[in-house]
Amino acid sequence: MKKLMQLFTAVALVTITNANAGWFDGDDKATEAKQDNKVYTLTLAETWPSNFPVFGDATKKFAQLAHDMSGGRLAIRIDSKNKHKSALGIFDFVKSGQYDLGHSASYYWKGKDANTLYFTTMPFGMTASEQHAWFAYGGGQELMDKVYAKHGMKSIIGGNTGNQMGGWFKKEINTVEDLQGLKMRIPGFAGDVMAKVGAKPTNIPAGELYTALDRGTIDALEWVGPSLDLRMGFHKVAPYYYTGWHEPATELQFLINLKKLNSLPKDLQDILTNAMELAAYDMYAHSEYASAKNWATMKKDYPNIQVKTFPKPVFDALKQANTELLEERAKSDPVAKEIIDSQQAYLAKARAWTAISDQSYLNALGN
Amino acid sequence: MKKLMQLFTAVALVTITNANAGWFDGDDKATEAKQDNKVYTLTLAETWPSNFPVFGDATKKFAQLAHDMSGGRLAIRIDSKNKHKSALGIFDFVKSGQYDLGHSASYYWKGKDANTLYFTTMPFGMTASEQHAWFAYGGGQELMDKVYAKHGMKSIIGGNTGNQMGGWFKKEINTVEDLQGLKMRIPGFAGDVMAKVGAKPTNIPAGELYTALDRGTIDALEWVGPSLDLRMGFHKVAPYYYTGWHEPATELQFLINLKKLNSLPKDLQDILTNAMELAAYDMYAHSEYASAKNWATMKKDYPNIQVKTFPKPVFDALKQANTELLEERAKSDPVAKEIIDSQQAYLAKARAWTAISDQSYLNALGN
Repeated sequence: MKKLMQLFTAVALVTITNANAGWFDGDDKATEAKQDNKVYTLTLAETWPSNFPVFGDATKKFAQLAHDMSGGRLAIRIDSKNKHKSALGIFDFVKSGQYDLGHSASYYWKGKDANTLYFTTMPFGMTASEQHAWFAYGGGQELMDKVYAKHGMKSIIGGNTGNQMGGWFKKEINTVEDLQGLKMRIPGFAGDVMAKVGAKPTNIPAGELYTALDRGTIDALEWVGPSLDLRMGFHKVAPYYYTGWHEPATELQFLINLKKLNSLPKDLQDILTNAMELAAYDMYAHSEYASAKNWATMKKDYPNIQVKTFPKPVFDALKQANTELLEERAKSDPVAKEIIDSQQAYLAKARAWTAISDQSYLNALGN
Repeated sequence: MKKLMQLFTAVALVTITNANAGWFDGDDKATEAKQDNKVYTLTLAETWPSNFPVFGDATKKFAQLAHDMSGGRLAIRIDSKNKHKSALGIFDFVKSGQYDLGHSASYYWKGKDANTLYFTTMPFGMTASEQHAWFAYGGGQELMDKVYAKHGMKSIIGGNTGNQMGGWFKKEINTVEDLQGLKMRIPGFAGDVMAKVGAKPTNIPAGELYTALDRGTIDALEWVGPSLDLRMGFHKVAPYYYTGWHEPATELQFLINLKKLNSLPKDLQDILTNAMELAAYDMYAHSEYASAKNWATMKKDYPNIQVKTFPKPVFDALKQANTELLEERAKSDPVAKEIIDSQQAYLAKARAWTAISDQSYLNALGN
């Protein structure tokens, strides 16, 4: 069915193009735009505190794009967590229409709808460029539409953090035994994977993380990567920086209340959704830039940071736990199975291509 | 100066944001949009033949986005090579105003302005995600603006092919000696690098490449990657598929005649440039999807394709030649030096980050 829909979309696009014989004509929509003199004010609630770097820049970029491309007919008011006081209230805010738009991450809603889990990133899953291709051409957006339509919402990619680092550790991890009882701040599904191999995932508010790690209340934590880790200062109190496995391509999300979206003139609907997509791609570039810059700073100021990668037996145990948890989810829900199957089928093809392109190139240059 | 300009932009953005206190208000631009009832018809000349996959889809996507977001006030007519008959005439078409817009690749114009070379991809240079970050946040767009403003044009990213494969070879390359006198279709700067180590780069029209390779008129050729190589059929006549080094992130370009751009209402200017950028990011996703899909097909239908990577001494010789050619260019022109320095400084930081993120992740999974 998904394939059929994709085929239909492809055929439809070709047909439109041929009908226009290379022209994308002015048509009655121009009239529509002219007739609409209103300024539409939309409200957006974001999970992040005010002036949060990179993530908060993405919502500002989106609002600016929407404003500029609509000639001021779209005015977006952004409320940060400091204003609405509920970082994880975004799903309900937008579903109920209390806010028109949201900016957050899909995997935060797995308690409300288990199938929202799959649209952020998955342990051992796709890299950012693989996942962008899956969203745009591999059926990902259609599956996300299916999950969110039930809640009267549309979700659109909201910006990628890039490959997240595995986190800051006080001690080296050399065997699976070293993970037993390890107290680590690692939330969500990746935390479930860690728990399955014997670690003790804990959740601690962001503001208390540094002290908890410094005092040994926790043994390890993951946050994001150099783009956002630098300001947290974890590198001052934990010597080992482990490479990632649990969030290889964390994609944030924009949420739109569908009733609100459909009430807008067609051109403003298109500006809104495309401004979101562009802000999302731009945020990935921003994240990569900030990580490159901040990693250089960290290495210079703290040359003793030791970058480590889990040894293969540790990876194998985590992969096995991840596979078993996904199998349980696929068995329990046909939509979950459809999404997991789509991701895994695409990942297999994409990774074979990545192996002979970017990966081979990077390895040949001997970094 | 570049740094100062970036700082100014950053400060300006923050100031605007604070002044609006989280609001992106409707302002007098709304009035401007309302007053403008005209349909603006713009012409675009592209290097590619009609219905060329992926590249041609990107211009159609751009035109559709511009049409939809403007409510039909922007009508883009796309002329392919079949119509305008001059694949490499795009620069002059847009500079002279014969066409308003173009879609091509910046490195085609190095004979007209040597400094256009650097905005497509460079041998041993940045990957696509590294380069997108450089364009958007590392000063790349500003440098491209500087080069193109002299010609009365603006260039905007036009879609990435992903890491290009090193090409199809009839014989294995095991030593630098194997490259001596090797007749290879490899155009542009990468061809200069190949010539410097002893190969014989030749240029042959696309339509004659298959026969030339089949009959041994040439020993090797590079085209793009599975996304576009599959339809060319080279895998049927050459057994070795070498991984890439010469075009790690080929970014196409949109060109805009600046006088034309500035004559448009401000909201349509913003729609135009942002639709280009979004179509560009989308084409990268499309390329990666098409390569993943086509590579799976190739491997299934022709299981004997042998993927090879040049041995380290061959890479070292090519890298050395590349470095020398770049040093010559940097010495001969201060703007060339400014661009090369910017790319190399950013690449050093970006690659250190890629090494501990995507590269480490891919290698740990043992592909």
